[in-house]
Amino acid sequence: MGDMDKPAHIKILERWLKSYLPQELFDQNGRLRPELAELAPKGAHRMSANPHANGGLLLRDLKMPDFHNYAVKVPKPGAVVAEATRIQGQFIRDVLKFNPDNFRVFSPDETSSNRWNAVFEVTDRCSTAEIFPTDENVSPDGRVMEMLSEHQCEGWLEGYLLTGRHGFFSCYEAFIHIVDSMFNQHAKWLKVTRHIPWRRPIASLNYLLSSLVWRQDHNGFSHQDPGFMDHVMNKKAELIRVYLPPDANCLLSVTDHCLRSRNYINVIVSGKQPELQWLDMDSAIKHCTAGLGIWAWASNDIDGKPDVVMACAGDVPTLETLAAVQILREQFPEIKVRVINVVDLMTLQPQSEHPHGLSDKDFDALFTNDKPIIFAFHGYPWLIHRLTYRRTNHRNLHVRGYKEEGTTTTPFDMVVLNDLDRFHLVNDVLDRVPGLCARAAYAKQFIRDKLMDHKTYIDQHGEDLPEVRNWKWQTKPVNRPGMKSSLHH
Amino acid sequence: MGDMDKPAHIKILERWLKSYLPQELFDQNGRLRPELAELAPKGAHRMSANPHANGGLLLRDLKMPDFHNYAVKVPKPGAVVAEATRIQGQFIRDVLKFNPDNFRVFSPDETSSNRWNAVFEVTDRCSTAEIFPTDENVSPDGRVMEMLSEHQCEGWLEGYLLTGRHGFFSCYEAFIHIVDSMFNQHAKWLKVTRHIPWRRPIASLNYLLSSLVWRQDHNGFSHQDPGFMDHVMNKKAELIRVYLPPDANCLLSVTDHCLRSRNYINVIVSGKQPELQWLDMDSAIKHCTAGLGIWAWASNDIDGKPDVVMACAGDVPTLETLAAVQILREQFPEIKVRVINVVDLMTLQPQSEHPHGLSDKDFDALFTNDKPIIFAFHGYPWLIHRLTYRRTNHRNLHVRGYKEEGTTTTPFDMVVLNDLDRFHLVNDVLDRVPGLCARAAYAKQFIRDKLMDHKTYIDQHGEDLPEVRNWKWQTKPVNRPGMKSSLHH
Repeated sequence: MGDMDKPAHIKILERWLKSYLPQELFDQNGRLRPELAELAPKGAHRMSANPHANGGLLLRDLKMPDFHNYAVKVPKPGAVVAEATRIQGQFIRDVLKFNPDNFRVFSPDETSSNRWNAVFEVTDRCSTAEIFPTDENVSPDGRVMEMLSEHQCEGWLEGYLLTGRHGFFSCYEAFIHIVDSMFNQHAKWLKVTRHIPWRRPIASLNYLLSSLVWRQDHNGFSHQDPGFMDHVMNKKAELIRVYLPPDANCLLSVTDHCLRSRNYINVIVSGKQPELQWLDMDSAIKHCTAGLGIWAWASNDIDGKPDVVMACAGDVPTLETLAAVQILREQFPEIKVRVINVVDLMTLQPQSEHPHGLSDKDFDALFTNDKPIIFAFHGYPWLIHRLTYRRTNHRNLHVRGYKEEGTTTTPFDMVVLNDLDRFHLVNDVLDRVPGLCARAAYAKQFIRDKLMDHKTYIDQHGEDLPEVRNWKWQTKPVNRPGMKSSLHH
Repeated sequence: MGDMDKPAHIKILERWLKSYLPQELFDQNGRLRPELAELAPKGAHRMSANPHANGGLLLRDLKMPDFHNYAVKVPKPGAVVAEATRIQGQFIRDVLKFNPDNFRVFSPDETSSNRWNAVFEVTDRCSTAEIFPTDENVSPDGRVMEMLSEHQCEGWLEGYLLTGRHGFFSCYEAFIHIVDSMFNQHAKWLKVTRHIPWRRPIASLNYLLSSLVWRQDHNGFSHQDPGFMDHVMNKKAELIRVYLPPDANCLLSVTDHCLRSRNYINVIVSGKQPELQWLDMDSAIKHCTAGLGIWAWASNDIDGKPDVVMACAGDVPTLETLAAVQILREQFPEIKVRVINVVDLMTLQPQSEHPHGLSDKDFDALFTNDKPIIFAFHGYPWLIHRLTYRRTNHRNLHVRGYKEEGTTTTPFDMVVLNDLDRFHLVNDVLDRVPGLCARAAYAKQFIRDKLMDHKTYIDQHGEDLPEVRNWKWQTKPVNRPGMKSSLHH
């Protein structure tokens, strides 16, 4: 009956509408009867005027502890070991302490597994059901919202943010895909509402993704999927941020930034395992604020004319890149290597595509116009290509990352299976830097043998080669005349 | 107590293991007592030897109706209108009829909405609950599995396939993201098991994604997300297939292919709205078997030296591309345009990355080495860049697609909002084909005015301009001496 050009259809419509008995609802002038109009709620009791429906009106800034206080002492790069998310958990603990009524943590059952245990010093897991003596850190007023349903956690957190509070979702990297579709709708909501003037900004939706693809020694292939980054980057650039801090101090700096932000979706990808630390707090802040940068202490292109750029994003790829650089610096000291670490993935995009994007001039200065770039990346390699395909030197960009190879094996074997390990990276450099000729052939054979030693050793011992497990950064920074400050890491 | 170097820990382990009372389970020689061993099931009753745990053993080929019988008559391109998925539904109906015990259809509640209504001529929706007189097409032995939970549908279908049957998931494009994580695990299972020799191949996991991003006239922004393609393409190339048939006959050909395949995940993206039809059945089969090809009847680069390549993938982008070509052919007959339609996205990748990938030689022959390519794509534009960044002519590739702009508006306004409409495409050509100078300025102003007319008209009438709604392909094919067959569409 949709076709209103037919008079018979209008009759049907009339009969239908009359079935609501309008004569009881409206007076003779067609006006709603006052006793009925009276029933509607008034003022802030109207659904649309309820301040909880425009949570930004209620939003208060978090009282933030000073993140410097949680810094790991890093007297020199690549010597001290720490668990980045455990350090972050101490910071989060104090955010919970300082903000007892408007900050919560959400996690399927990974608060402890992702090493945020410190939060239980100040609060509990929330449960309003019966609590048994064997339950650990559970109480009805706990502010750690745990339920083994990523959907439930996402829904809770979105509601909490939309009504003017702050929160953090801690999840296993592979399983955050469970909420892909919910994330989509929140991102779409933010995209539309940020252009509605009466809508006040709400706190950002913050994700910590840990228990990463590269360290699934026990869980194996089913727990390996770094693709949430790809998924979020399909949404509007103005509201998406993705960070891959390479160590604990960088993670602290990024976390502080995300907790203060508004109307964004912040995805932080960070390992939880004991790992080498690279930057002291001061360097970490500068590095994370820029979003990417040359690590001068690891580079030997004194004249600023590298033969190869070794780029990395993510903690494990950073380790493998530096280990590759150390081999190169020892075996081929004449190759001038520039090391670039990327924390903020958005810097790679053109400025026209994302507000964090580097200008082409700055990008070219960092990555050169014509030298090979070996990029070791935490996720699927094509994500880096997608971000950089318009850059001058894209044709020389070679990305290593996760290519869906994995099983239950040692941490180092995981990177070997995906060609992201130090030896493959050295090989990639030797394949692309011209003029090495015969010497490269020896080095390539050395690498081949090393990889065979690795396989044999893990088959026999079930753990990685001691030289891999105990590896430390030992390369001395080169002297850079007149640029003392850049030597300081 | 994990550290077994400490004798006290061994004591704990011993106490724990003894709590299972091994003396009741094993005899003095440490052998399992025969009366207990007797309890274990034998032969095919053992869980791992149950043939349903290796479904490929039970798998029978589908009895396939001849898909030619459902063909739409297309006497010439772009004149006849049909609803592609409704035609597909007639084919699926007969697959259900011919295979009453090993083929089912799964869908949240979109069997009718995605226009597969014909299936209800031969079966019902399945429900074992009480059935009311007002229920339509519901019975306990129905083979249309509907439940408004994408998770449930995906789980049902995976179980059905893993136990040796066949099926098809019909879903709204935007909401298939709900099962991203389940899809991941099925893809990982296929990747691992296809290299286990005793595992027999199972039927492919087939998705129809309809109710597409471009035609959400009533539902709007929340229903717009073509990103499932991006998600699936992160998985191993050997098991992923993505098809964008431009019309009903192509959809029939692709559907037949997918239903016969094994061990793949096939994603078919197809509109359900009345749309112009382009290829007769014979041309459709050839086109879909190749996966992409020049549409000679729409191209005028008689000498094989185009000034511009207009590529398209997906039904709506194909329409807009052809409408743009018609404008160009009328206004700028001297511009030599080559039209390429892509059905099988995998053909765009290098051969080294995917078995369907075109060789570089073939790719360069189609897309040229140096001419501008304007690519109108159904999904997020960077997916095309990610697939083609290693191709010779990538620097000249310009992709239009969905860039997360949308609302409740007319179909044509959706493409305008995302710069994918015929007028923007013409503009893209004028910007990139050299030598048009002053004439291009007039054409660009004509386009600017057209887009303003469009906005004014939809504001006033709530539907698209008549010239857009009633557009038909009317351009005559050019004579190509000595190549008659290529004129036949």
